[in-house]
Amino acid sequence: MLGPIDHGERYELTNPTALPQAAGFLWNRRMMIQVTCRGYATAQFMQPEPAKYAHAPNLEAKTFMQPEQAYYAHHPGRFVYVKDEDTGELFSAPYEPVRATVDAFQFRVGRHDLGWTVEHLGLRVEMVLGLPTDDVAELWELRVSDMSGRTRRISLVPYFPIGYMSWMNQSAEWRSDLGGVVASSVTPYQKVADHFKNLHLKDKTYFLCERQPDAWEASQTAFEGEGGLHKPSALQAEQLSGGDARYETPAACVQYRLALQPGGTETYRFLFGPALDEAEIAQMRAAYLSEAGFARTREAYARYVDGGSGCLRIQTPDAEFDNFINHWLPRQVFYHGDVNRLSTDPQTRNYLQDNLGMAYIAPAVTRGALLHALGQQHANGSMPDGILLVEGAELKYINQVPHTDHCVWLPVCLRAYLDETADFALLNVVVNGLTVAERLDAAMAWLQKDRDTRCLSFIAQGDWCDPMNMVGYKGRGVSGWLTVAAAYAMRLWSGMCADAARPVQAERWQATADELNAAANRHLWDGDWFARGITDDDVVFGVSADTEGRIYLNPQSWAMLSGAASAEQRIKMLAAIDAQLETPHGVAMFNPPYSGMRDDVGRVTQKHPGSAENGAVYNHAASFYVHALYDAGEADRAFSALRRMIPGPDAADYLQRGQLPVFIPNYYRGAHQQYPRTAGRSSQLFNTGTAAWAYRSVIEGLCGLRGEAQGLRVQPQLPSGWSELSAEREFRGARFHLHVRRSGQHRVLLDGEPLPDGLVRGIQPGRDYRLDVELA
Amino acid sequence: MLGPIDHGERYELTNPTALPQAAGFLWNRRMMIQVTCRGYATAQFMQPEPAKYAHAPNLEAKTFMQPEQAYYAHHPGRFVYVKDEDTGELFSAPYEPVRATVDAFQFRVGRHDLGWTVEHLGLRVEMVLGLPTDDVAELWELRVSDMSGRTRRISLVPYFPIGYMSWMNQSAEWRSDLGGVVASSVTPYQKVADHFKNLHLKDKTYFLCERQPDAWEASQTAFEGEGGLHKPSALQAEQLSGGDARYETPAACVQYRLALQPGGTETYRFLFGPALDEAEIAQMRAAYLSEAGFARTREAYARYVDGGSGCLRIQTPDAEFDNFINHWLPRQVFYHGDVNRLSTDPQTRNYLQDNLGMAYIAPAVTRGALLHALGQQHANGSMPDGILLVEGAELKYINQVPHTDHCVWLPVCLRAYLDETADFALLNVVVNGLTVAERLDAAMAWLQKDRDTRCLSFIAQGDWCDPMNMVGYKGRGVSGWLTVAAAYAMRLWSGMCADAARPVQAERWQATADELNAAANRHLWDGDWFARGITDDDVVFGVSADTEGRIYLNPQSWAMLSGAASAEQRIKMLAAIDAQLETPHGVAMFNPPYSGMRDDVGRVTQKHPGSAENGAVYNHAASFYVHALYDAGEADRAFSALRRMIPGPDAADYLQRGQLPVFIPNYYRGAHQQYPRTAGRSSQLFNTGTAAWAYRSVIEGLCGLRGEAQGLRVQPQLPSGWSELSAEREFRGARFHLHVRRSGQHRVLLDGEPLPDGLVRGIQPGRDYRLDVELA
Repeated sequence: MLGPIDHGERYELTNPTALPQAAGFLWNRRMMIQVTCRGYATAQFMQPEPAKYAHAPNLEAKTFMQPEQAYYAHHPGRFVYVKDEDTGELFSAPYEPVRATVDAFQFRVGRHDLGWTVEHLGLRVEMVLGLPTDDVAELWELRVSDMSGRTRRISLVPYFPIGYMSWMNQSAEWRSDLGGVVASSVTPYQKVADHFKNLHLKDKTYFLCERQPDAWEASQTAFEGEGGLHKPSALQAEQLSGGDARYETPAACVQYRLALQPGGTETYRFLFGPALDEAEIAQMRAAYLSEAGFARTREAYARYVDGGSGCLRIQTPDAEFDNFINHWLPRQVFYHGDVNRLSTDPQTRNYLQDNLGMAYIAPAVTRGALLHALGQQHANGSMPDGILLVEGAELKYINQVPHTDHCVWLPVCLRAYLDETADFALLNVVVNGLTVAERLDAAMAWLQKDRDTRCLSFIAQGDWCDPMNMVGYKGRGVSGWLTVAAAYAMRLWSGMCADAARPVQAERWQATADELNAAANRHLWDGDWFARGITDDDVVFGVSADTEGRIYLNPQSWAMLSGAASAEQRIKMLAAIDAQLETPHGVAMFNPPYSGMRDDVGRVTQKHPGSAENGAVYNHAASFYVHALYDAGEADRAFSALRRMIPGPDAADYLQRGQLPVFIPNYYRGAHQQYPRTAGRSSQLFNTGTAAWAYRSVIEGLCGLRGEAQGLRVQPQLPSGWSELSAEREFRGARFHLHVRRSGQHRVLLDGEPLPDGLVRGIQPGRDYRLDVELA
Repeated sequence: MLGPIDHGERYELTNPTALPQAAGFLWNRRMMIQVTCRGYATAQFMQPEPAKYAHAPNLEAKTFMQPEQAYYAHHPGRFVYVKDEDTGELFSAPYEPVRATVDAFQFRVGRHDLGWTVEHLGLRVEMVLGLPTDDVAELWELRVSDMSGRTRRISLVPYFPIGYMSWMNQSAEWRSDLGGVVASSVTPYQKVADHFKNLHLKDKTYFLCERQPDAWEASQTAFEGEGGLHKPSALQAEQLSGGDARYETPAACVQYRLALQPGGTETYRFLFGPALDEAEIAQMRAAYLSEAGFARTREAYARYVDGGSGCLRIQTPDAEFDNFINHWLPRQVFYHGDVNRLSTDPQTRNYLQDNLGMAYIAPAVTRGALLHALGQQHANGSMPDGILLVEGAELKYINQVPHTDHCVWLPVCLRAYLDETADFALLNVVVNGLTVAERLDAAMAWLQKDRDTRCLSFIAQGDWCDPMNMVGYKGRGVSGWLTVAAAYAMRLWSGMCADAARPVQAERWQATADELNAAANRHLWDGDWFARGITDDDVVFGVSADTEGRIYLNPQSWAMLSGAASAEQRIKMLAAIDAQLETPHGVAMFNPPYSGMRDDVGRVTQKHPGSAENGAVYNHAASFYVHALYDAGEADRAFSALRRMIPGPDAADYLQRGQLPVFIPNYYRGAHQQYPRTAGRSSQLFNTGTAAWAYRSVIEGLCGLRGEAQGLRVQPQLPSGWSELSAEREFRGARFHLHVRRSGQHRVLLDGEPLPDGLVRGIQPGRDYRLDVELA
């Protein structure tokens, strides 16, 4: 094993498998490197804190969910190896880690479950994943069937890697009393106080088997062996060796050795998830791990998801679009509104917009969220950077950096809620001593106050664009977008005040909005579009003189909404957007992307060009634009921008974006000129305020079914290529059946009767209404 | 590519390779899971903060260097693929990622470089890694030779994965102007202030080629393709496609297509490392990347490492032991003393002990470190938890948790330094207004004060055992070890005061030491050994009544050193240690290991049983024991414990430990009873205070060549199985040639003349002395 050792200045090893971890190390005054006999290396250097120049393939931190994460062989996953015991042939379902070229493959993304069917070696393997509604667990059903007509001897080996749990304590073993592999760990901590915080953490991971397997293995290393994940050593033996993991990387591997009759089928069920202790694992098993438990859970979960199916069903000439709007978009909106992106301190703007979306799904949730958020308003009227959702939560990460836009989202969210419900009583609800209306006044007053002498809104360390962190960190820089966004917020609140018989406030906020709009025009109008802002050192940016970041989308969209832009200005702005921000995959947030640091703008200029905030098609910004376009009656531009948020329907488009049309991602990469190979690629991240705004635009813009204080305003805006559209819309307890067609004239019929002003009044809950709209 | 799409509630995909990232997601009220078509999954749940139950295979944090880290296919490494272009056969050197069974393999760990030789397919591949002395860079030499006697057409493809650099910005491309792949990134930050801190960071990674390759690829994904790292798709084509990485995981892959004449050889050189900018990359290339540059660097680096080769060369009946002591142990000691474990805030006890080791290598470094540490002493005499080494450094991680032992290490380190140098002038050097001697007095006074009414030392949130964090966090618990360690520290300082003509202080500190020793005997003596401590709630632990953590090694070792233990007690303690702590791989730190949380002891009981602090052979504790044993004249026990710190020489021992004998690791796993499979396994972590103590024990204990104020005390302690030993020792500028043999009588000869008291006085620098020692 060890070769002839030179008893001098070196050691020699002649077999890389006997001592796989054997390593040497070198160092110098600034670095250290440890390299194993097999070539793996760990190096760090000082600058002055320790750093790395070669990294693990994944992000080295526990943090928020990342876009575009990279996968690699040992990435967490759920796999099943299938071995033909007569021939020794091996494949894995769904595809990784063996990557066999199988005879048939199908991946199904359902609203309530995910499923795969893989056919290979005359066998069919089906896998289905479902979740319970309130517990943390994965329900896996696995079915294997013979398709060859022969008797088969096979091994079926689910392999669920558990990975590096903790440097303090990790282990795993088969637990016959619980019927599965149980991995244990202790969350690392150093300060005593953290120990007490961690006591309730679910530090165990279980993989429970409904049917007793024939063998098992709990160590990742022992399972993989020298074969590699594509051909694990443990599968070369007749059966897994029953090993445990003792401060080794845990994995759940179980083996079923079975004889399938010709055409026969066997079904297996598994439960995978975290637990506090063994009693909880036993409870989970009892509650879920049976055929009846799976069936019961599936039904309950479908009811849960379908409870968020939204208020609209459409039928248009674009069947793919219909499918997305009817099934997938409200699902994404519901996800956001129901779980707040799995955060305990969502950013205030996200929290309010996610709940804006809920106005079309479960308005009572929106109401509760508005009251909850206002309960955390500061005494000076400003809103905190994040809303704490649970006892003991803290503002973390980006929520420790001051942003100045959070108040804007209060009237924006409130307006959508009132449009949908006309629940003006909400305005008189008292939160911490002030009514909702008074709190909105205070928020608007804070926006009014947080301006410079030119009446432009300070940006501090960011606004909606949170990585625009250096425009105003010295306290002087202003945001062009926020200036018109504050104007829009005040305009909205002014309108609500008017509807709520608060004429004094209605007048005050419209006047303040006008002041802001005037200031924007005075200081930010660049001739063809509005600038993005003015830095601490008085540099106007997002203007024609810039070679990078020349034009930003948001200031244009919100200037249209706020009333800052005249009709003449709007024409110029739209032309500039068409010329400079349009891409095949949507409208870019700004262009051209920054190629390097601009230290008066900040972090946004350091992000990867063509992705996320730096020049990408950032769908959230595009969704504001769509809203503004419908508001301005720009039906074709609006639908075009909206449609491109959804991948497809062309195969080439799916390929370029790399995503199925089951959600709108937070961005598609931009930088078409600079990086055409990757432009359009999806972030794969489904956390985005886009969902709410896109759904709203379909309902209120495209279908033109928008609530007002008095009733439902009917004003569909079909793209010019469409000759008709049908929709079913639930609104204030009634059901509206809309049919739109092009007839050459414009008129609206309510239950066959003309409705000259297009406003349905006196809506009776429970009733069905028929709306026939003819367009010119 | 997309199969027939069901225009209903699900989407289907029929090819897992066309849209490799295509994914669906499910969520419920407490969790979310996104699963790709190929089976990779990302899941998180709330408790209430986001958490995971299936993890990446590596530790998800940038933190200190970890023991026993797991390797996996995509782990950082340095690899070279070799493809026979005539047959298409492929292998990789050193071994990963292809894992071919090669004809010959050799891994060489040298003092100055690491090297591999791999023979396969009639080719020999040699790789050598070296470092420069002051710059951060890896120098790789790669040589390929034909051994078949035929003309060969091959591709040589170095593959250096760079990994996930940053979520903010990462890219890589071939740079013909620089002659290599350059990967760029921006270190993520959110707070403006961090931007300015990050401006100087070396966020680029370069891989420079001395010879221009024929092709290259900078994207990890494009290189690997569907083939997997064991058979990369890019290597199936004739040549790499020259792609870049744009917010994709970067890798450096270059291809040399070459024709080797029969018996021919080609040599390539590469430079791999981090850089601030392109100018720095160009400079590094100019400085290093040539045959002459490599040769110059190799020589300079060898001089650097050899500058730390220590003060001792031995020859004993144990040739492996000699090799380790003569070549490897001083190298490890030098590493610690020269770079302080690559930290900007080393724990105070580590800093002082690492510099204790330097007393035998470069005493001036020890002197500087003592002064530097004392410069950070608090006004009340206590020492901070870490010593800041550079401007702007901060106390981090464990250094933010209060430990009470740091003052102990001042006299311990100082005594080793004074023994080696007799530089008593140091005591009068003024640091921040007080002399070194006064600062030592203050440190001892703080230890004297930080005791309870029983005269036992408070432990706060830990002592030397930093995860023993809950014994005294309420402010009452005491440490048994620290009580006798404080006594030993005072005893040492008392002796130094006596040598330095400070009789008052000498008397004071010996009296205080006696008081502590008496208290230890009164409250902690358990009948056969000393207890480890008494908790906040007055529970004595580390005693015979305990079923776990019954006996700890440290209180015994230090009670022997401090004088707390009588000869009678020592006999009992040694018997208890023999019976309860001895293992085949060394002496355990305590036993039996804790199987679960003991919330009056703390984190140590939550660590993985059998590893690190929980019941392992923690070599640092074992090294104190060895020191105490030599101090007590227990030559056999001492050598036995010392020898087992080094793997081998039996093959079975290497296999069980999984480590080459080129350093002493911080631990070998314990828990022999509970987990025999993994017991003895090396942590592979070379950061440990053990190195300094082990080296000191060989010099002063085994060879018995220990400095005193007056000169060199000669008192070798050979294990009973040895009949002789030779050593060469540098001491105060002179050179001592020692020969020890068993003659049946005891005597010491200096240059042939009897030296009755064994103390060499009046040592003249530059002189050679011969010491002949006869043992009974």
